[in-house]
Amino acid sequence: MADAPVVRPTPISGFPEWLPDVRMVELRWLDTIRATFERYGFCSVETPSVEALDALMAKGETSQEVYTLRRLQAEDDGDSSRLGLHFDLTVPFARYVAAHFNDLVFPFKRYQIQRVWRGERPQEGRFREFTQCDIDVINIDQVPLHFDAELPRIVHEVLTTLGVPAWTLNINNRKVLQGFYEGLGIGDPLAVIRAADKIDKIGSAGVEALLTGPVGLTADQARACLDLAHVRGSDSGVVEAVGRLGAKSDLLTEGLDELARVLDDLADLPPGSVVADLSIARGLDYYTGTVYEAKFVDAPGYGSICSGGRYDDLAGTFIRRHLPGVGISIGLTRIFAKLVADGLVGGGPASPAQVLVVIPSDERRADALATARQLRARGLNVETYHQADKLAKQIRYASRKGIGHVWFPPFGDDRPHEVKNMATGEQNPADPAVWSPAS
Amino acid sequence: MADAPVVRPTPISGFPEWLPDVRMVELRWLDTIRATFERYGFCSVETPSVEALDALMAKGETSQEVYTLRRLQAEDDGDSSRLGLHFDLTVPFARYVAAHFNDLVFPFKRYQIQRVWRGERPQEGRFREFTQCDIDVINIDQVPLHFDAELPRIVHEVLTTLGVPAWTLNINNRKVLQGFYEGLGIGDPLAVIRAADKIDKIGSAGVEALLTGPVGLTADQARACLDLAHVRGSDSGVVEAVGRLGAKSDLLTEGLDELARVLDDLADLPPGSVVADLSIARGLDYYTGTVYEAKFVDAPGYGSICSGGRYDDLAGTFIRRHLPGVGISIGLTRIFAKLVADGLVGGGPASPAQVLVVIPSDERRADALATARQLRARGLNVETYHQADKLAKQIRYASRKGIGHVWFPPFGDDRPHEVKNMATGEQNPADPAVWSPAS
Repeated sequence: MADAPVVRPTPISGFPEWLPDVRMVELRWLDTIRATFERYGFCSVETPSVEALDALMAKGETSQEVYTLRRLQAEDDGDSSRLGLHFDLTVPFARYVAAHFNDLVFPFKRYQIQRVWRGERPQEGRFREFTQCDIDVINIDQVPLHFDAELPRIVHEVLTTLGVPAWTLNINNRKVLQGFYEGLGIGDPLAVIRAADKIDKIGSAGVEALLTGPVGLTADQARACLDLAHVRGSDSGVVEAVGRLGAKSDLLTEGLDELARVLDDLADLPPGSVVADLSIARGLDYYTGTVYEAKFVDAPGYGSICSGGRYDDLAGTFIRRHLPGVGISIGLTRIFAKLVADGLVGGGPASPAQVLVVIPSDERRADALATARQLRARGLNVETYHQADKLAKQIRYASRKGIGHVWFPPFGDDRPHEVKNMATGEQNPADPAVWSPAS
Repeated sequence: MADAPVVRPTPISGFPEWLPDVRMVELRWLDTIRATFERYGFCSVETPSVEALDALMAKGETSQEVYTLRRLQAEDDGDSSRLGLHFDLTVPFARYVAAHFNDLVFPFKRYQIQRVWRGERPQEGRFREFTQCDIDVINIDQVPLHFDAELPRIVHEVLTTLGVPAWTLNINNRKVLQGFYEGLGIGDPLAVIRAADKIDKIGSAGVEALLTGPVGLTADQARACLDLAHVRGSDSGVVEAVGRLGAKSDLLTEGLDELARVLDDLADLPPGSVVADLSIARGLDYYTGTVYEAKFVDAPGYGSICSGGRYDDLAGTFIRRHLPGVGISIGLTRIFAKLVADGLVGGGPASPAQVLVVIPSDERRADALATARQLRARGLNVETYHQADKLAKQIRYASRKGIGHVWFPPFGDDRPHEVKNMATGEQNPADPAVWSPAS
């Protein structure tokens, strides 16, 4: 018996971890995401978990709760204390591109699947450590608009393959918002965007009060802004609907043209999966064209599960090159944790093994090991139960781990190899040179 | 042109990151390691990057330089300051097993591939952030000795598949060391182990001076200890060689028996890959039987590239259950970084794309996109060059990224699909419904 424990193994709030059956599903998700990103030619990049604090803070993102590092035993910790855990994958990507600019081929298309950290108060859907899956296309001076459509297509393929419950990817274009407000003769479009962005929280009446109050619009202007925020649709009907609202400006025309072209590129996707929503703003100071935001249809209040958009300048903080791009991020942990909480994930196998080779007696150990080796050489995942315990105990072990087949090594010349299918209970002779789990 | 940069994108010493071509190889390595672990039936576990500080410190591992977290903007940071980044995967695994004890099936076999952090001064082979690949088998009360042989077999398979340059996995057994010294009538075996462990650094003469000096052995005892440390071999000849050194004790007999059985289980591996080395001690206070340590044959001074062993009690700090086990850890970053530094990795493709579909003109864009979609549906990794640039520029892009094939969409009825093999320069008609990169 071990000594009395000295530390309680309490989980830390906001830092999720999964049991093996759930982790097996998460691994499949990660495989699917990576395979889809690679099928579109994106390459993998990983950056360190930390960045210099001045790099993390360069854009003045003080709204993010950054974790800084400190060496436990350091007396003068001048060095480590200037390091912080990254709070997203955009800042590290920008620093990476600047650091390796001359070694990269442009247009540069990368995916990055990593944990990020935020010292926030944990709540539903908000974690302090979570995994983001980002793709971005950047180029020197310009990136074709077709990528603005390719990214939602990739996300659609990922979420559909994963079987994520009903979701909508909303698209907008920042030029439409800004151009529309300018067309109404509004002097401070950003103030309107900021107010309109609260429509989910305070409702139309609340936004209208903000617009006619602090923002200083006329009643007609405020009404037109609210009308814009209510425009939704999947095709060029959206452009016509906005046109009927009366505002006119070159920027609005340009934005509507971009939005229509992106929707047109995506016209083959199932209805409702990608929808133009003229109320979406996102990232006030960063995005300059297309913006994305995905939510669960049945739980819009759970928050954004994917987001991104087009930006003019990825890495100006770090390098004197003009690098526009477009990117989107899938909030893996946020999506996955919801499905776990809703009981939609888990309960499957807790082991990757397809076969458990039992050891009926020590005399048959050599045969058992040889069988396992033969099956593994054929690419099968095979576990050996290394102890000649009672067979019932070994079989029960396979059952509890969800291992689909139990293999009995041969016994002299009389009894050949046999395999028990744990789902059906059937036990039949089998040849380790050709047997497969599907057979 | 972007504004003047405000932050230099300097890499942070001890936190490695790779260019895309090197990262592609690292991903293949990770895939190989995971697939091999799973082929032996180990399940994946991931734990948070942080643990409570009292959990990290429970075993008094004050020799590790732990990074603690601090929220940048927190006033009262009582909470976060009790969190530290894990410095290995053993403590988190022990805490995980204790936290989820009732939900796990024993024997529990897990692999864990994650980054760990140590606030050490970076030097060759030593990083502040690096990836470890651990496998452990634990059970309630006892774990069959056969696992002590299965783990080196798995490591052998991994390193061989990866093509890691010549390495040796050294094995010893702590019972042999302790039993041998006891058999010589030495009162403080740990002091001898500690001194003998320095043989790589201070040589035989240095160790002998320590043993006859501070440790207080007679010249004969010291000579016998050094003789033991020089015993190496791959089979039961090792047992005979130790026997000839004169020491006798029950613990020695037990340890030699275990060592011989492990070597016997591994007798089919190529000579030199697994070698008993009676000088190996490792982890003074933790390991109790078999111990492992792998090194590069041509660079033994680079340090250990794999290590592990058998322990009596994994999680006694956290739970009142007796959980013995055996585990081994592959130092992925340490191995990989050496190969990168030696120029053995990199220079290959910088993209996972197998095909670049070019867009010869905007009129042919729809055909190009349809072709890319058809190829992707067949599981191929396909990039679309979304801009109707000059063909030479598009082809040069494929060449610079190491994309093996360039696809030309059809042009009316006259010109069918054509594919250019970038390695041979040949260009031939091709059918997107059946073409494969190997054809």
